[in-house]
Amino acid sequence: MNNRFIMVLLSTFLSVLTLNSAQAKSDNFSTQQLTDVEQIKQQALTSDLAWDLVESLTTEVGPRMPGTPGDKAGVAWAVAKFNAMGFDKVWTEPATFPKWIRYSESAAVISPSPQKLHITALGNSISTPKEGIQAEVIEFQTLDELESAPESAAKGKIVFINYQMNRDRDGNGYGPAVQARSRGAVVAAQKGAVGYVMRSVSTAHHRFAHTGGSHYKEGVTKIVSSAISNADADQLHRLVALGEPVTININVQAQSMGEGTSYNVIGEFTGSEFPQEHVLIGGHLDSWDLGTGALDDGAGVAITMAAAKLAHSKGKTKRSIRVVLFAAEEFGLWGAKAYVKANEKNLKHIVAAAESDFGADKIWAIESNVDASALPVVRDIAKAMASLNVEHIGKNTARGGPDLIPFRPFNIPAFRLAQDGTDYFNYHHTADDTLDKIDPEKLRQNVATYAVFAYMAANAKTRILGK
Amino acid sequence: MNNRFIMVLLSTFLSVLTLNSAQAKSDNFSTQQLTDVEQIKQQALTSDLAWDLVESLTTEVGPRMPGTPGDKAGVAWAVAKFNAMGFDKVWTEPATFPKWIRYSESAAVISPSPQKLHITALGNSISTPKEGIQAEVIEFQTLDELESAPESAAKGKIVFINYQMNRDRDGNGYGPAVQARSRGAVVAAQKGAVGYVMRSVSTAHHRFAHTGGSHYKEGVTKIVSSAISNADADQLHRLVALGEPVTININVQAQSMGEGTSYNVIGEFTGSEFPQEHVLIGGHLDSWDLGTGALDDGAGVAITMAAAKLAHSKGKTKRSIRVVLFAAEEFGLWGAKAYVKANEKNLKHIVAAAESDFGADKIWAIESNVDASALPVVRDIAKAMASLNVEHIGKNTARGGPDLIPFRPFNIPAFRLAQDGTDYFNYHHTADDTLDKIDPEKLRQNVATYAVFAYMAANAKTRILGK
Repeated sequence: MNNRFIMVLLSTFLSVLTLNSAQAKSDNFSTQQLTDVEQIKQQALTSDLAWDLVESLTTEVGPRMPGTPGDKAGVAWAVAKFNAMGFDKVWTEPATFPKWIRYSESAAVISPSPQKLHITALGNSISTPKEGIQAEVIEFQTLDELESAPESAAKGKIVFINYQMNRDRDGNGYGPAVQARSRGAVVAAQKGAVGYVMRSVSTAHHRFAHTGGSHYKEGVTKIVSSAISNADADQLHRLVALGEPVTININVQAQSMGEGTSYNVIGEFTGSEFPQEHVLIGGHLDSWDLGTGALDDGAGVAITMAAAKLAHSKGKTKRSIRVVLFAAEEFGLWGAKAYVKANEKNLKHIVAAAESDFGADKIWAIESNVDASALPVVRDIAKAMASLNVEHIGKNTARGGPDLIPFRPFNIPAFRLAQDGTDYFNYHHTADDTLDKIDPEKLRQNVATYAVFAYMAANAKTRILGK
Repeated sequence: MNNRFIMVLLSTFLSVLTLNSAQAKSDNFSTQQLTDVEQIKQQALTSDLAWDLVESLTTEVGPRMPGTPGDKAGVAWAVAKFNAMGFDKVWTEPATFPKWIRYSESAAVISPSPQKLHITALGNSISTPKEGIQAEVIEFQTLDELESAPESAAKGKIVFINYQMNRDRDGNGYGPAVQARSRGAVVAAQKGAVGYVMRSVSTAHHRFAHTGGSHYKEGVTKIVSSAISNADADQLHRLVALGEPVTININVQAQSMGEGTSYNVIGEFTGSEFPQEHVLIGGHLDSWDLGTGALDDGAGVAITMAAAKLAHSKGKTKRSIRVVLFAAEEFGLWGAKAYVKANEKNLKHIVAAAESDFGADKIWAIESNVDASALPVVRDIAKAMASLNVEHIGKNTARGGPDLIPFRPFNIPAFRLAQDGTDYFNYHHTADDTLDKIDPEKLRQNVATYAVFAYMAANAKTRILGK
């Protein structure tokens, strides 16, 4: 018997003790159910299932940009895995999106000191001419500063926005920083610019450029939309600060290709008493093309597939547990929008929903967004997660993950199982988003938390209602 | 008065106390000299000089691969800086080397799961055909394993060596790992391979491939010689382990261009009593082309230039202090070889030599390689470094930096000012070797240590002799 096994036994024993004293009085769960929860949790903490899934997805499929052969292979992979794992129902639902392909990208300082820049095209960017676009750089510290500049401020120049995002556990730096990614090229063009490059939306100290969605606006000239790594942004800033004109060349070859189609892949363990009612967990199956989509969002896919399987390991749950692997999230939540449209009449049967799409670091908190009648159940769920070092945030204003945004008008009972995102934006949307960035121990803690969540929400005496 | 200033004052005061009690009895240095040493040390610990130098070199010049315009700009930069800093003599000495240029490099898994690999050509590699070289991968764990394989083991295949280097403060993992870089393509070709790719000589968790020198052997077919990042090596290993044939394409466009010429750049503060005798410190001015050569070896250049200036700040030293910025180190110590040849008759006048070429982390030890008569002076020097947390390694078998290798037959008094290399091979020879990897505080500690070294070796009562 090895040490790890002894620890697990001991931990199970202590959990059961805790359970008997603290939880046996629950009005929402039977003693047997609470014992099941503890056993599922311990099983998850020693299971390699999620690791095996994300290893398989990122290795055997690799990058999965919507509309590419990798995306198609990802859909086939998910269908096969759901079936192999014994899900009761497995099906796909189509989702369309504006397809965009990256061919190549490069950039360089031309003068004063010739050197390469590590750049990536932002999603949806147009191509430059074959020889690239070459112009003097004009630097702004924020999108606001660019917006406040006079009309012709950037005439004939390449606008460079040098905004550095904030690092935080909850990822609060992302929202403010992403404005320059989404709209920067439009505002730059309005000021007369011929090209747009920004400091990546990134907390990294490494020389990877971060891609991500960007948009054009009708009536505004389309100019190339791109991002350079933090190290390159520092370099460009220093060169501009020398006071002499700095000329760079940006070469992006990319193409918008009309409408593409991909598929949400859905696996369900059917409930025994209320099969229509279901817990909805999941992640998104697509990824950007630069890395292998391990943290974003292979981890979420693996965590929720594994958690559903474990939650079902004590036999059928009262309500169904449905895992939805959304399509084309990175291009604008296209799978989620299609899902909501196709399933509009059934959204009322969702008893709890949570998406895992914030990497693979530990879950540190659970927050709900439910009807007051459901708060006792939520408290019991949170209590069962306490031994996983998951806090209960009582505000009851959770929004769920990105793919749950299109669900909001329907007031579903949404949950946030909050991962620690301190390091997430070191890797997000870069070539460096690869399997080695996932810590197997932390992944197991995620699976345990989601398994507890799925099992309890599916088995609660009374169903959880939305607000 | 800010806190830092108070700390410096306090530190100076404590140093002088230490000095009075511990060092005033030295037979090798006067009390005034020991006071000077303390003041130089404190001055170095608050000086931005080295930072300004390495910032300027990596920004205004950038990459400096031998024979490129960046290399030429680096030489001009060094001459100008030495002059601006008031060195008494500034001159260049030519060095020739086999010139090699990288144009482009890419690689991809073709089957079973198409995806890009992050690759770099090793220095001196031939080009592949324009469409790349495409073949099945055969994996070996070590160069030894490849050498032991039957003659036709790799026939028509691309050899992949997956050896993972060891991480250590003293960089002891580099020597064993670098064999596969230097000779791997030769051994692979001898086994019938059509291409060669190795796991980078790297301790990184990031997706950068590490370049470095490699060699061909007369009579053995030249095949492409390349390295992939650790993350890509893991991926390729997993794919091979699936048991089905794995086909990859490697595309390298590079060119050997005959003999190139660059220049060692030398600056000297002339000694007052024994101007021929000199301390020799320095780094190498060239870098690989992928990054901006901040850690390798912009830091060494900056540390030793700044240290010489500070060591000279109390007036002329008894012996000269010479800073040699070697050319074309990365291609095979060509600058150092040329220096030794051109200065052979004067090598006996070197009273102490040390090269800084191991990044910019703190110096944790000093070790000498000197005649026994000089050990008391070495102990005094080490004593003066103790407050910088520099230990004295008493073995007296130091070998100096890479550029001091060609000096070895001449038994010069060599020193190792040992930097902490734990993280050095995270960045070494990658695109990620950029200014942001240098910590200004640690850089100052290096400058202080080198300044103490240069001042004391130049001013010791009796000169230090080699073995």
